[in-house]
Amino acid sequence: MALLVEKTTSGREYKVKDMSQADFGRLEIELAEVEMPGLMSCRTEFGPSQPFKGARITGSLHMTIQTAVLIETLTALGAEVRWCSCNIFSTQDHAAAAIARDSAAVFAWKGETLQEYWWCTERALDWGPGGGPDLIVDDGGDATLLIHEGVKAEEEFEKSGKVPDPSSTDNSEFQIVLTIIRDGLKTDPKKYTRMKERLVGVSEETTTGVKRLYQMQANGTLLFPAINVNDSVTKSKFDNLYGCRHSLPDGLMRATDVMIAGKVAVVCGYGDVGKGCAAALKQAGARVIVTEIDPICALQALMEGLQVLTLEDVVSEADIFVTTTGNKDIIMVDHMKKMKNNAIVCNIGHFDNEIDMQGLETYPGVKRITIKPQTDRWVFPETKTGIIVLAEGRLMNLGCATGHPSFVMSCSFTNQVIAQLELWKEKSTGKYKKEVYVLPKHLDEKVAALHLGKLGAKLTKLSKDQADYISVPIEGPYKPPHYRY
Amino acid sequence: MALLVEKTTSGREYKVKDMSQADFGRLEIELAEVEMPGLMSCRTEFGPSQPFKGARITGSLHMTIQTAVLIETLTALGAEVRWCSCNIFSTQDHAAAAIARDSAAVFAWKGETLQEYWWCTERALDWGPGGGPDLIVDDGGDATLLIHEGVKAEEEFEKSGKVPDPSSTDNSEFQIVLTIIRDGLKTDPKKYTRMKERLVGVSEETTTGVKRLYQMQANGTLLFPAINVNDSVTKSKFDNLYGCRHSLPDGLMRATDVMIAGKVAVVCGYGDVGKGCAAALKQAGARVIVTEIDPICALQALMEGLQVLTLEDVVSEADIFVTTTGNKDIIMVDHMKKMKNNAIVCNIGHFDNEIDMQGLETYPGVKRITIKPQTDRWVFPETKTGIIVLAEGRLMNLGCATGHPSFVMSCSFTNQVIAQLELWKEKSTGKYKKEVYVLPKHLDEKVAALHLGKLGAKLTKLSKDQADYISVPIEGPYKPPHYRY
Amino acid sequence: MALLVEKTTSGREYKVKDMSQADFGRLEIELAEVEMPGLMSCRTEFGPSQPFKGARITGSLHMTIQTAVLIETLTALGAEVRWCSCNIFSTQDHAAAAIARDSAAVFAWKGETLQEYWWCTERALDWGPGGGPDLIVDDGGDATLLIHEGVKAEEEFEKSGKVPDPSSTDNSEFQIVLTIIRDGLKTDPKKYTRMKERLVGVSEETTTGVKRLYQMQANGTLLFPAINVNDSVTKSKFDNLYGCRHSLPDGLMRATDVMIAGKVAVVCGYGDVGKGCAAALKQAGARVIVTEIDPICALQALMEGLQVLTLEDVVSEADIFVTTTGNKDIIMVDHMKKMKNNAIVCNIGHFDNEIDMQGLETYPGVKRITIKPQTDRWVFPETKTGIIVLAEGRLMNLGCATGHPSFVMSCSFTNQVIAQLELWKEKSTGKYKKEVYVLPKHLDEKVAALHLGKLGAKLTKLSKDQADYISVPIEGPYKPPHYRY
Amino acid sequence: MALLVEKTTSGREYKVKDMSQADFGRLEIELAEVEMPGLMSCRTEFGPSQPFKGARITGSLHMTIQTAVLIETLTALGAEVRWCSCNIFSTQDHAAAAIARDSAAVFAWKGETLQEYWWCTERALDWGPGGGPDLIVDDGGDATLLIHEGVKAEEEFEKSGKVPDPSSTDNSEFQIVLTIIRDGLKTDPKKYTRMKERLVGVSEETTTGVKRLYQMQANGTLLFPAINVNDSVTKSKFDNLYGCRHSLPDGLMRATDVMIAGKVAVVCGYGDVGKGCAAALKQAGARVIVTEIDPICALQALMEGLQVLTLEDVVSEADIFVTTTGNKDIIMVDHMKKMKNNAIVCNIGHFDNEIDMQGLETYPGVKRITIKPQTDRWVFPETKTGIIVLAEGRLMNLGCATGHPSFVMSCSFTNQVIAQLELWKEKSTGKYKKEVYVLPKHLDEKVAALHLGKLGAKLTKLSKDQADYISVPIEGPYKPPHYRY
Repeated sequence: MALLVEKTTSGREYKVKDMSQADFGRLEIELAEVEMPGLMSCRTEFGPSQPFKGARITGSLHMTIQTAVLIETLTALGAEVRWCSCNIFSTQDHAAAAIARDSAAVFAWKGETLQEYWWCTERALDWGPGGGPDLIVDDGGDATLLIHEGVKAEEEFEKSGKVPDPSSTDNSEFQIVLTIIRDGLKTDPKKYTRMKERLVGVSEETTTGVKRLYQMQANGTLLFPAINVNDSVTKSKFDNLYGCRHSLPDGLMRATDVMIAGKVAVVCGYGDVGKGCAAALKQAGARVIVTEIDPICALQALMEGLQVLTLEDVVSEADIFVTTTGNKDIIMVDHMKKMKNNAIVCNIGHFDNEIDMQGLETYPGVKRITIKPQTDRWVFPETKTGIIVLAEGRLMNLGCATGHPSFVMSCSFTNQVIAQLELWKEKSTGKYKKEVYVLPKHLDEKVAALHLGKLGAKLTKLSKDQADYISVPIEGPYKPPHYRY
Repeated sequence: MALLVEKTTSGREYKVKDMSQADFGRLEIELAEVEMPGLMSCRTEFGPSQPFKGARITGSLHMTIQTAVLIETLTALGAEVRWCSCNIFSTQDHAAAAIARDSAAVFAWKGETLQEYWWCTERALDWGPGGGPDLIVDDGGDATLLIHEGVKAEEEFEKSGKVPDPSSTDNSEFQIVLTIIRDGLKTDPKKYTRMKERLVGVSEETTTGVKRLYQMQANGTLLFPAINVNDSVTKSKFDNLYGCRHSLPDGLMRATDVMIAGKVAVVCGYGDVGKGCAAALKQAGARVIVTEIDPICALQALMEGLQVLTLEDVVSEADIFVTTTGNKDIIMVDHMKKMKNNAIVCNIGHFDNEIDMQGLETYPGVKRITIKPQTDRWVFPETKTGIIVLAEGRLMNLGCATGHPSFVMSCSFTNQVIAQLELWKEKSTGKYKKEVYVLPKHLDEKVAALHLGKLGAKLTKLSKDQADYISVPIEGPYKPPHYRY
Repeated sequence: MALLVEKTTSGREYKVKDMSQADFGRLEIELAEVEMPGLMSCRTEFGPSQPFKGARITGSLHMTIQTAVLIETLTALGAEVRWCSCNIFSTQDHAAAAIARDSAAVFAWKGETLQEYWWCTERALDWGPGGGPDLIVDDGGDATLLIHEGVKAEEEFEKSGKVPDPSSTDNSEFQIVLTIIRDGLKTDPKKYTRMKERLVGVSEETTTGVKRLYQMQANGTLLFPAINVNDSVTKSKFDNLYGCRHSLPDGLMRATDVMIAGKVAVVCGYGDVGKGCAAALKQAGARVIVTEIDPICALQALMEGLQVLTLEDVVSEADIFVTTTGNKDIIMVDHMKKMKNNAIVCNIGHFDNEIDMQGLETYPGVKRITIKPQTDRWVFPETKTGIIVLAEGRLMNLGCATGHPSFVMSCSFTNQVIAQLELWKEKSTGKYKKEVYVLPKHLDEKVAALHLGKLGAKLTKLSKDQADYISVPIEGPYKPPHYRY
Repeated sequence: MALLVEKTTSGREYKVKDMSQADFGRLEIELAEVEMPGLMSCRTEFGPSQPFKGARITGSLHMTIQTAVLIETLTALGAEVRWCSCNIFSTQDHAAAAIARDSAAVFAWKGETLQEYWWCTERALDWGPGGGPDLIVDDGGDATLLIHEGVKAEEEFEKSGKVPDPSSTDNSEFQIVLTIIRDGLKTDPKKYTRMKERLVGVSEETTTGVKRLYQMQANGTLLFPAINVNDSVTKSKFDNLYGCRHSLPDGLMRATDVMIAGKVAVVCGYGDVGKGCAAALKQAGARVIVTEIDPICALQALMEGLQVLTLEDVVSEADIFVTTTGNKDIIMVDHMKKMKNNAIVCNIGHFDNEIDMQGLETYPGVKRITIKPQTDRWVFPETKTGIIVLAEGRLMNLGCATGHPSFVMSCSFTNQVIAQLELWKEKSTGKYKKEVYVLPKHLDEKVAALHLGKLGAKLTKLSKDQADYISVPIEGPYKPPHYRY
């Protein structure tokens, strides 16, 4: 795909796979709106006052139907928006087309190369000569990373005239990042610095991105305020848990059509994502084995009747392997060689380095047979048996299916909208320093409350007397900050 | 699609959607083989002796990847095969292409019209001047129906010269059947009679088809022996139950991406199919309400914590409706009008008349919006709200997803192979009259046994003393005929 | 306990533990009545016409609170009743006292010796000089066995003058039976013969008793008609399955207070009882392993995510062992020696010979430590480690808890009442030969229907058109005889 | 029971129900030790160094078998111990007897009056003239409360000569507390002041007690350091959740023998306790309805397929009501009047004021029928129908069954031992102020780790590289403080 920016008749930039899918995307967006009461309530509550009037928002977040509803909520509140995906396989092309045609500048398609991926990220951040965005919606932290690396390079360049050297790293993706920055320095050596200066803040979606932010905060290198949306209860205990419970089997089924019942499944990691995955597999009739480093999570798995072993113990007898750890080097090529024929290996834990894709790709004599896009059988020369790797080791629920369903994403994205509103409202008050914040509990509870009516639920009201007895306000928040839900 | 038969270079007839998908089909067939140990064992055990040498088998059964493995098991045992699908939406075009190219005459594609459907059925039954098939593999009984109706018409024509009158029936599909037979009479007034004479027997796959056969047996109109494969334990208690538990959520997810958790789901009917559906929905986090006519099945639902109500009680508060009854007129257009906006209505119970599609299609002012193939939103003029109907009321797991997974179909189809072998072996012995038979229990147990190794199971062996104590042979069968599992 | 029959002030015979518990028994009987709608409906429907007027009914069935409601349903319909328990540990003494005081002749207490057990059985069958009962309600077949053995001995005695020789058998319990019969011959050599002649029939409750009856039918030795209540769907698919799902954890908890979550549990046998047990253990958080001889049941276990292995594979790593097979010699002393310290061993499958109690008791140097009644720790001399055996290997749910709960027993016992009514109504018509019968399906459905209202369920009604379409009567029965539910 | 302190032959004080049950208690304690690996590991690790040498520990915590193992762990580490129960129904008399005979001064029996209860608490705190305990193990905070109220009264008395006036409160239990303090003032006006001065700190077990502590911290009235054991993950996410999942059905079954399957159950509150209860009831086949004030917890319930309504919505159709809120006035007598006949009402949420017992007891014409201890039927005069109240509204799992099982209590109590060790070790360092602390995460993880071996689990080890990648030490702790598990 030639990397040329296109323009709509109204002059808005975009680069998507197929603009003719916009109608289809629109139909699915309309379905999703019915399933996303939190976002629709934001439109009702805040739309009239146009709080984002004048705000430029850049998003780097899976360009799906659900994200489309998020984007159009931001625009309904007055924002201008530019968007890219945060994963090379996660874009739904009809969603991208509908948004590009109707609402925002989109640079995303399913099956980007890494080169294309970072080009899209750069496009989303580039608001033209006037500088960058006011706000960032980030997922995994790639937009944030690019700015931080850009600023670092510009400062070094100013100081010493040195430009980044892509060959200084083994990491092939990071080489691309450095190349982009290096090439940018030639034409505009202050681009990222201007961005940083304009930026009011970022709201970050995932565990992985949040971890990066806390590290930057600890190192003192964070360049702007950040709101940790991931650790809103209505995000991490819903999207991570119930979203994966839904989308893991969905991805398995669409990619392989394999019967889950009767199979032995290994879930690496028993955090919120692992809990959702293990629950889904168990309910579908698999026998689930968990691997864990953390004894508390391990004991939780045991209490649910799951076996806790090491990967080495079970690598040759299991049928399905799922990584959910957020760590790297979980399933190595040496593990894969020992697996049963047609064992399924997939990752739903964020980066593709949970699975040793590089080890697999470079294994001498290994043969890759693409069954269909995002479903590959890799055959080892010694045994002639193969394993099935989904989405090239990247997020299988987004690569092989359509990601989390609308309802649970409405919880997550309502947190995003609230976080963005908060950052924008306080842009001049100094309330937020260059640190990482979580949303206050009453907003978390509000997000939940917005989603109850759709499911027919009715809340009980505290009496004054009862509220006093347990020392909470009648209207909440109802729990201390350390409460774990 | 022009209804012209094509031929492979080897001269075998076919009509499929796209022969270029044959390679993709072959890859998925190879994956499925690993998941279908029963069928592969049949190839190992019976292949060398070529028991089907000289046998012509016609199949009318969803032309999926799993069926492809069945077909190639039949050909591996020496049979010649012609095949059509038994549902206009259930064909997987890559499976059809691979089989058409490599193994058997196939007449099937996804999205046939009813005209095309019956044309395909006729093609699959037509073995040329030498008459029809020796054996039929039937699913739902359409191939059997066509022969029975054909013979009836030919007898009447011989007697009175009268030909069938399509306008004698309201049922638009049956009009097509009668038209085909009527037109055939002109060129060959003995075609179905010759078929009947050659036919050794049929093995029938489903509850619905079996019911038809028992009715014909009761009426004395059954023209050839039939084996009821559906009521093998390893079929109805596996495919119907565990297959639907797998494929119902699969279909829902692929068609609508809707979050199942938190929703109110109504399952009409709590037989094996309904039990599988209800289990799947409950496990995914829905609140499930069952409708039933049979107090025993209703009490079973209650014991699983499901509510049992009538459709009228819940029609306006539920989010998902699934019919599994095998009966007609379950969800009428008057029900649909009262449903919530974007309520999902689907059928997994065999025929599309479980849902009042005709009432819906002819409702004054109703508007159909096709979101994507097999996913339609129907908007009522009064309320401007819509419901989402899957697969036009036909089997949603085959129309919207890929049907049951390979492993459980291996159980069902191994029963089919065994039934076909039995009919063919006894073709001249008179063992089978023009009646309906079930397979003996030791074969049922054998089918199960063939599927244990793949799942790592180890059976316990009875001692002689124990076997005597409970009065069974050491090698089984272990249960009395009335045992319910 | 001295084996002397006592009499109430009204002159009715009894032998129970403690008559002062009658009030407590009455209170619990009243609670149970609310939970047993089937039995209470029988009282309402049939009470006024007193169909059992003049009938003598002997019951040999666990003398629990639920059985008390059964007995008082029989008396409410006009019967005279004598009762004993069918298990030495299953009597609830307060239930026995209340019935003895208020309604029927009872011979039963918790913790009978085998001598006492058979004395009670004899008392329950002995209606005085006028002969025996008209009808028997049997559970496990001991009352039926005593009559058959008695008649056999009397015939032999008449022919040859020979009396039974208790030393002719190794089975210590059967020695007691033969002794009773031998001693009876001296005073009345026609007692069992007269019983047989008077007897209209028996209705049998359990799998084990039914198996005995079918063997006698096959051998031609059955002396009177029998109705197989066990194989009513509303019995075996409810009491066996849902009853055990409830009462297995109940027994485990009351006997040992052990935490089930996290444990490895082995369920020997995956019939209805095993299915209920495995479901309960899995739901409570155990990891469940099943042992099976039958490949079909094994495959069912696998589809539910349970591992299927042999006892030998897992004997040294499991924490809880449950036998449900209905066979003998399942867990032998050699297995028990290999178990972990404080492994729990129990039986819910009918006779105590599922567990090798004799091998355990006679193991050299083994030490029995009674924690509390029905909970023993057996310590092996070699390892000084012990296992915990519940209820001395007899039914643990009745020995350690209170058996199945009222609601599910209402299903079973309503079948008993209907079976008894049917036998009595047809006593002179010759409808029932000396064979084993099951109740017709419409009565099975009726039993279920009587239990729906209590749970708030509403059935759907077929239209005439729908009923015709599926060829069933509007009012049922709705399923063919071979239907498996 | 006359309130006289007795003495063992060794001179240790006690007051228990029946010393002859000590042997039975010892047997069950020995069984429990095998199930409590955390406590036994503490004995192995710390026993040799006798860290509690010279420490006096007073405990106010359900005097069960599990607590006996805790007490003997404290004494094995060198402590002297005095103990009372924290609930009038929760003592297991055989456990109390064994401990009183063998290990510690115990003042507890099942079925205390409130007068007796507070007498026991006072006895447990009274170490003779030398003052009070060094450390307190508290559950619900009653021992802590008594000291705080005592000190307050002594200060007022010293200041103004005024003594507490029991008639100043409506709360009948608090009247008893004030009476005890008032009476004590006469003989020793510095008793509680001396206690306070000696006290090193308290470790508190439950949500309710912790809430009281935080309130005192907020008010500045907390008199000594406190460790919040409840909010250790290995306590609140295990004992509250998995403990209740086990012991709620246990209590229901022992108290009522009612079948849970098919019933409608209302769980008031969906915190950890409510989650455990709802899971248990759902798994047992009930249809569960949740009431909640907190929208986040409500949304969690919905995601598990539970209905969320208000008590008013369902009061007349449910069969079982369970309060788990930690609040008061949840089920009022006006609710109870509207319930179905024999609806079961019980509390597992801490205090008996969750249920309006006072309203019930004083309802005009209401009749109480005690079925058996802790199971009462209350009949309303208007309807003559009754409801069944368990444990007089107090903790039903301890009142009607034996509380949580040993394994999960081992987690909770290992936290207690660690907390006590920490307080004692730091008694002179000033590390702990008069505030509330939670244990550091590495100790929480250690508690979990001590429980893995018993369940056969094997942990995965991080490589150095992986640990660096996610920025945690190889040996943990692995999660940030805000992690919710």
